[in-house]
Amino acid sequence: MSDVYASKTYGEHEIGFGRKIGILVIDFQRGFTESQFPMGGSDHIDRAVDNTARLLKVARAKNAPVANCYVAYGNDDQFPHWKVGAVTRDLRRGTKAVELDPRIADHGYDYVFEKWGASAFFMTPLSSFFTRHHVDTVAVTGCVTSGCVRASAVDSFQFGFRTMLVEDGCGDQEEGPHNDTLRDVGRRYADIVSTDDVIRQMLRNEPA
Amino acid sequence: MSDVYASKTYGEHEIGFGRKIGILVIDFQRGFTESQFPMGGSDHIDRAVDNTARLLKVARAKNAPVANCYVAYGNDDQFPHWKVGAVTRDLRRGTKAVELDPRIADHGYDYVFEKWGASAFFMTPLSSFFTRHHVDTVAVTGCVTSGCVRASAVDSFQFGFRTMLVEDGCGDQEEGPHNDTLRDVGRRYADIVSTDDVIRQMLRNEPA
Amino acid sequence: MSDVYASKTYGEHEIGFGRKIGILVIDFQRGFTESQFPMGGSDHIDRAVDNTARLLKVARAKNAPVANCYVAYGNDDQFPHWKVGAVTRDLRRGTKAVELDPRIADHGYDYVFEKWGASAFFMTPLSSFFTRHHVDTVAVTGCVTSGCVRASAVDSFQFGFRTMLVEDGCGDQEEGPHNDTLRDVGRRYADIVSTDDVIRQMLRNEPA
Amino acid sequence: MSDVYASKTYGEHEIGFGRKIGILVIDFQRGFTESQFPMGGSDHIDRAVDNTARLLKVARAKNAPVANCYVAYGNDDQFPHWKVGAVTRDLRRGTKAVELDPRIADHGYDYVFEKWGASAFFMTPLSSFFTRHHVDTVAVTGCVTSGCVRASAVDSFQFGFRTMLVEDGCGDQEEGPHNDTLRDVGRRYADIVSTDDVIRQMLRNEPA
Repeated sequence: MSDVYASKTYGEHEIGFGRKIGILVIDFQRGFTESQFPMGGSDHIDRAVDNTARLLKVARAKNAPVANCYVAYGNDDQFPHWKVGAVTRDLRRGTKAVELDPRIADHGYDYVFEKWGASAFFMTPLSSFFTRHHVDTVAVTGCVTSGCVRASAVDSFQFGFRTMLVEDGCGDQEEGPHNDTLRDVGRRYADIVSTDDVIRQMLRNEPA
Repeated sequence: MSDVYASKTYGEHEIGFGRKIGILVIDFQRGFTESQFPMGGSDHIDRAVDNTARLLKVARAKNAPVANCYVAYGNDDQFPHWKVGAVTRDLRRGTKAVELDPRIADHGYDYVFEKWGASAFFMTPLSSFFTRHHVDTVAVTGCVTSGCVRASAVDSFQFGFRTMLVEDGCGDQEEGPHNDTLRDVGRRYADIVSTDDVIRQMLRNEPA
Repeated sequence: MSDVYASKTYGEHEIGFGRKIGILVIDFQRGFTESQFPMGGSDHIDRAVDNTARLLKVARAKNAPVANCYVAYGNDDQFPHWKVGAVTRDLRRGTKAVELDPRIADHGYDYVFEKWGASAFFMTPLSSFFTRHHVDTVAVTGCVTSGCVRASAVDSFQFGFRTMLVEDGCGDQEEGPHNDTLRDVGRRYADIVSTDDVIRQMLRNEPA
Repeated sequence: MSDVYASKTYGEHEIGFGRKIGILVIDFQRGFTESQFPMGGSDHIDRAVDNTARLLKVARAKNAPVANCYVAYGNDDQFPHWKVGAVTRDLRRGTKAVELDPRIADHGYDYVFEKWGASAFFMTPLSSFFTRHHVDTVAVTGCVTSGCVRASAVDSFQFGFRTMLVEDGCGDQEEGPHNDTLRDVGRRYADIVSTDDVIRQMLRNEPA
């Protein structure tokens, strides 16, 4: 952490895990995880999918709430003013690009939902779902770190949750913006943790 | 822009100004703009205050809606899980650190409001205020770029507004994270513009 | 209107139509409009569907934004604490009870979306969609008046829109709670109008 | 309850108290509780203030989170399209009409906040505050039942909380709309309870 920020009390507190963990997985849909799609084909994202799959296996075994989201739009002009061409062109309801990657989805267990914006919390019932299930700590994985993951982590913080950004469970198109995100978010809103940290904590927690 | 992102269609579209501009000023409160406070004393922020003051003079003359916000908390434990120590220690209601910088505030004209989170839109009536006034384009200034400004710009986009991030109207503790923010936001959610760009556009617009 | 409320300035202002109308249709899904389902089979709702169909024909011809929503849930415990048994038992994704009534749906034109709560605005992108399309006036129809329609009309008001509650485009299980809703909402948040009022206004408006 | 609604499964479930109660008090500000103001002077509201004061005494002794809100606006045109004249004319920041009634406010303990709309949850940090404090059950009191109380109870439900509408802690300008609200809300979103019910439950609860 930069001395300037530290000298201004950024990053002064750690947050720590609370009583009950919920897992939030951002946009691991084929449009981002498969190289056949314009935005797909990043090794960094692929690594994150594998770590998330490992995390979710434990989460489901321990009965932790899992939320799994994707971006999808209906017709033209039913989306915000995106600058990313492929988002509004390719991420259309009912197409393969909006299907969740089979490595991370369990439609019988997860809370699966569509989102409109960058953040998984923006105008979705996600906070209500977590409240309903007594979650007080949200572990965030997904893609891409410098976009939808970051926006979701900020909202998780804003909604009052303890927020854990899972560094090796998040992937980006390049490592630079991924690392910049860990730096900015980690000094303000969330603890930066590993997949193994979250797994260890879940194994320690009593079932709710 | 990185070739990898451009090759994946990031930054493909410009957004452009719409029919009516609203100005959103983030956290230009004494706690950030004056060096007597732990988080204050950045030349980069000082420059942004001066540019914003210049922008607001035109905005008010042209009758453009202006929203001016600050962070403030009441008692202990009435805030989210911030990692920045001074935010929850110093930004308390009724203290000098939460007063708007006199260079940018006009309490008789502006819509002034308190916020709880990073984003000026998060659980505040800001989007309703803009909707009420037919705003479709939001120009964002304030501090700090890599924190509350960025979160607010993302939300402006998510609420359906055309979003203009005013690069010389935003300040940070250091230039690195400021520039990283312009890069990430500018390829996804907002056009990166100058104070003069927004002034020119307002002078061109008919009054609403 | 009761003299007591009027004497306390309730209902003092009319709101009036603004510049651009959007139509919001609440929960005209088979689970409410067809008598084969536990909550279906109300003549009052049937009348409202027919009036809404008439309204939507004009709206689409005039290129007015149309939003059409339904309630649907995934798995168990992925819903709020409803006291209405059939809502959480029958309104499940992928079943016939959550299909929009064919009399009112045009999937190629409308903005169609799922909702979680009572209000069509609650944690859905609806306000963003209307903002994107410069809507400043929302005409609300659907079912049931004393439940989801009322909650949606209140939110439309809160989001800053001019709100028109279309009395003959809304239906309930019984007329009493329908009329009580018109009374409560009409003195606070919305003008009470007829289907024909909205049609006349749309025919008068210039295309946006 | 009407047979028609019951036959359609309305009111089928009771909700019941959960693990931790938060108290939400709506708009017991002088503008509504004192007869010198245009909207004040209702005996029914006065009764509700007294019951709420009794409830809050226990809540604070048991360390239950208490949220206390009021409506207030800054300048002209910084409010939604209210039809109630006195709301936008009289409920202005810094005036006596927006001060909390001294019988129910404890500024050193309560979470006190301003609201813009009808619902205490609408674009306020209320849900974040409750989440931060592990609240899963919200007991709602205040005024007026058929307006802001009702809107707040619906939002409490939508945010995933178990919602208790405290019938003798809520007041209206007249009893008719109060009772209609209990009927509509009680069959869908919330249990209808008494002040004594909530007090008993708090005395039974372990401290969180």
